[in-house]
Amino acid sequence: MKKTVVRNAFYAQSGGVSAVINASACGVIETARRVKQIGRVYAGRDGIVGALTEDLIDVRRESAATIRGLKYTPAGAFGSARFKLKGIDQNRSEYERLIEVFRAHDIGYFFYNGGNDSMDTALKVSQIGASLGFPISCIGIPKTVDNDLPHTDCCPGFGSVAKYVAVSTREAGLDVASMARTSTKVFVLEVMGRHAGWIAAAAGLAGRSVAEPPHLILFPEVPFEQQKFLERVRACVTDYGYCVIVASEGAAYADGKFLADAGTRDAFGHTQLGGVAPLLANMVREGLGYKYHWAVADYLQRSARHIASRVDVEQAYAVGKAAVELAVKGVNAVMPIIVRKSHRPYRWSIGHVPLAEVANKEKKLPPEYVREDGFGITAACRRYLEPLIAGEAYPPYRDGLPAYVRIKGAPVRRKLKTDFKV
Amino acid sequence: MKKTVVRNAFYAQSGGVSAVINASACGVIETARRVKQIGRVYAGRDGIVGALTEDLIDVRRESAATIRGLKYTPAGAFGSARFKLKGIDQNRSEYERLIEVFRAHDIGYFFYNGGNDSMDTALKVSQIGASLGFPISCIGIPKTVDNDLPHTDCCPGFGSVAKYVAVSTREAGLDVASMARTSTKVFVLEVMGRHAGWIAAAAGLAGRSVAEPPHLILFPEVPFEQQKFLERVRACVTDYGYCVIVASEGAAYADGKFLADAGTRDAFGHTQLGGVAPLLANMVREGLGYKYHWAVADYLQRSARHIASRVDVEQAYAVGKAAVELAVKGVNAVMPIIVRKSHRPYRWSIGHVPLAEVANKEKKLPPEYVREDGFGITAACRRYLEPLIAGEAYPPYRDGLPAYVRIKGAPVRRKLKTDFKV
Repeated sequence: MKKTVVRNAFYAQSGGVSAVINASACGVIETARRVKQIGRVYAGRDGIVGALTEDLIDVRRESAATIRGLKYTPAGAFGSARFKLKGIDQNRSEYERLIEVFRAHDIGYFFYNGGNDSMDTALKVSQIGASLGFPISCIGIPKTVDNDLPHTDCCPGFGSVAKYVAVSTREAGLDVASMARTSTKVFVLEVMGRHAGWIAAAAGLAGRSVAEPPHLILFPEVPFEQQKFLERVRACVTDYGYCVIVASEGAAYADGKFLADAGTRDAFGHTQLGGVAPLLANMVREGLGYKYHWAVADYLQRSARHIASRVDVEQAYAVGKAAVELAVKGVNAVMPIIVRKSHRPYRWSIGHVPLAEVANKEKKLPPEYVREDGFGITAACRRYLEPLIAGEAYPPYRDGLPAYVRIKGAPVRRKLKTDFKV
Repeated sequence: MKKTVVRNAFYAQSGGVSAVINASACGVIETARRVKQIGRVYAGRDGIVGALTEDLIDVRRESAATIRGLKYTPAGAFGSARFKLKGIDQNRSEYERLIEVFRAHDIGYFFYNGGNDSMDTALKVSQIGASLGFPISCIGIPKTVDNDLPHTDCCPGFGSVAKYVAVSTREAGLDVASMARTSTKVFVLEVMGRHAGWIAAAAGLAGRSVAEPPHLILFPEVPFEQQKFLERVRACVTDYGYCVIVASEGAAYADGKFLADAGTRDAFGHTQLGGVAPLLANMVREGLGYKYHWAVADYLQRSARHIASRVDVEQAYAVGKAAVELAVKGVNAVMPIIVRKSHRPYRWSIGHVPLAEVANKEKKLPPEYVREDGFGITAACRRYLEPLIAGEAYPPYRDGLPAYVRIKGAPVRRKLKTDFKV
């Protein structure tokens, strides 16, 4: 009889967090605890930074109840990081350090829970591991509220932010409608989505007809034209008495310049945005003179576990579970994906694609999902989006507030003498 | 046997709407349908404006299911208005017009659902009715997310916005905490509350210790000092790795100047605010250089019926019901109030106070509810606030979205030949 090779697993969260990334962690950990090929599960404190600095969290020390609670706890329970490993040629030492740490802790499975950049990192780790004679199974677990990973039907994290945005748009729309006669005529809600308009598109689910909010959606994919925009706002106020606008933070002019370019950049070199809502509101005031209000949902939208989509929570768990199952089957350098089988009823299964086909690729909103006038979504877009916000998955409450769990976070004893400065 | 005098009732919504003002409408209408002294119930389309223009909604035409649905539908189903009647001496014609319309439709009961200004209007209508030989029973129904009406334990609408703000702060706090090592260090959430810090205070429920978000709350009642503020932000980032700030839109300097005075004024002559969050974020960047994010919840917070407080919904219904019961008992010119009997378990009953004792009065956060350093809430404040966010009252969902109701809004046939320009 063949002896089972038992090796440890390392799980890390990467990039912007979501309402359900911990549900993926839950899927990984609960599944890893059941399979005989995996010994201990370690997690990186603050993502990959924890691996580089050999700051590993001992997941065995967390109770089953805490791990179960991750399924309804938003944000990154183990800490996430905006830390992109450079190309292997530019900074080989970072990759070698990772392998050094993995070797020291006998880590044979690397589960990296993130977006495009992270899939690239996972791929490189698997390549350099092989080249250094340390075979490691690297599985990417999709996570991004931006919904911009290719091949998968959707990205865990997106369904919940989509639901939040659609619900908020419906609610704020009722608010504005009820007071428009004597008060605010124009309301602008700014939502996330730097380069892809998926989140903005989700707001479109709030209304069924052109008369219902949102009356205008501004997508990053559609060049912004001030004159056309103001004309549509005026027509809305004339026709319906008010106008609700949902603007993507990535709304941009034809030359690619963001409406709200704050001029600062994050660790990945991406422009840090914010403030398209007040900018548009001001444009409306100056151009049309209407009374306005604006909101910027920012982190509220991606951490809103209280109104998470049940489908999203289930998919997040499922990709975490599948990652472990694939790894122990010997599949390497892949990412589990959601495969849509039917729209209504929504049926889906889990497949997988090579990391090389995902890494650093961005899936934008296809043109057929944007209404011809550029300010709304099509029926095809609605058919795609609607199942993703289906169902509620309320967390438990204590004293009126969600009873989210917190990990103990006990560190694993270090084995290396060398420090690593990130 | 004495014959019951049957007269009609008029209900109007006033001022900024809330997640539960329609629950009060539901309480009024369901109760009015049961009492024999009230014939028909009319509602003002767009609040008092509908009365002045004789644009009344025939509530009989709404199904029982629609009326029941108001209990879980946010914003003002009949339309609300920011329209303040001037003093009687300044504009007697408006009051006389109201009485003219009420007389034409045999309206003997006036239920006015609003805040301080509205209580003043209701009082004046009762006075002028009497002086014009048209006795009308005027009952104010408390509604304000600002929680600033005196005498009542709290104001329907507040508990739900408080819950939204506390939940959002907890969720966004987890988000920032999980990424602070390599990303955003400072997060600012702007909340409503022009002159009273009740809503900002509610954010304080999100954390149990000084280490937990929100680390700083900025109240309108506490003069803002930039140096002290920046020192505290720096200390937070040093001690906890990040800093979550909740700022009231009404945060102001010692001289009373709002941090974010946009310079425009609404119909009541109040300064229109907005933008204290980006202003503070910028202050942090310039003074301390930390990476920041900010959110402005604006209308999202007051329309968020999806996360309403169950206690708030029950109280909103109860004050509507009590208004009708008081009116048919012959009580006039009063406002039902919530009377707190005990903190934990929270027990309350309904009382009432003369409108004259409520009109145009504002209840600010008492000094003993603000922590000595001015940046947080005390245990006494927590004891007061906690019961108000207790319990969930989820609306029904369809296709992933709350299935809010919409009224038919059939107009009542006009009886007057005169128009009235508002």
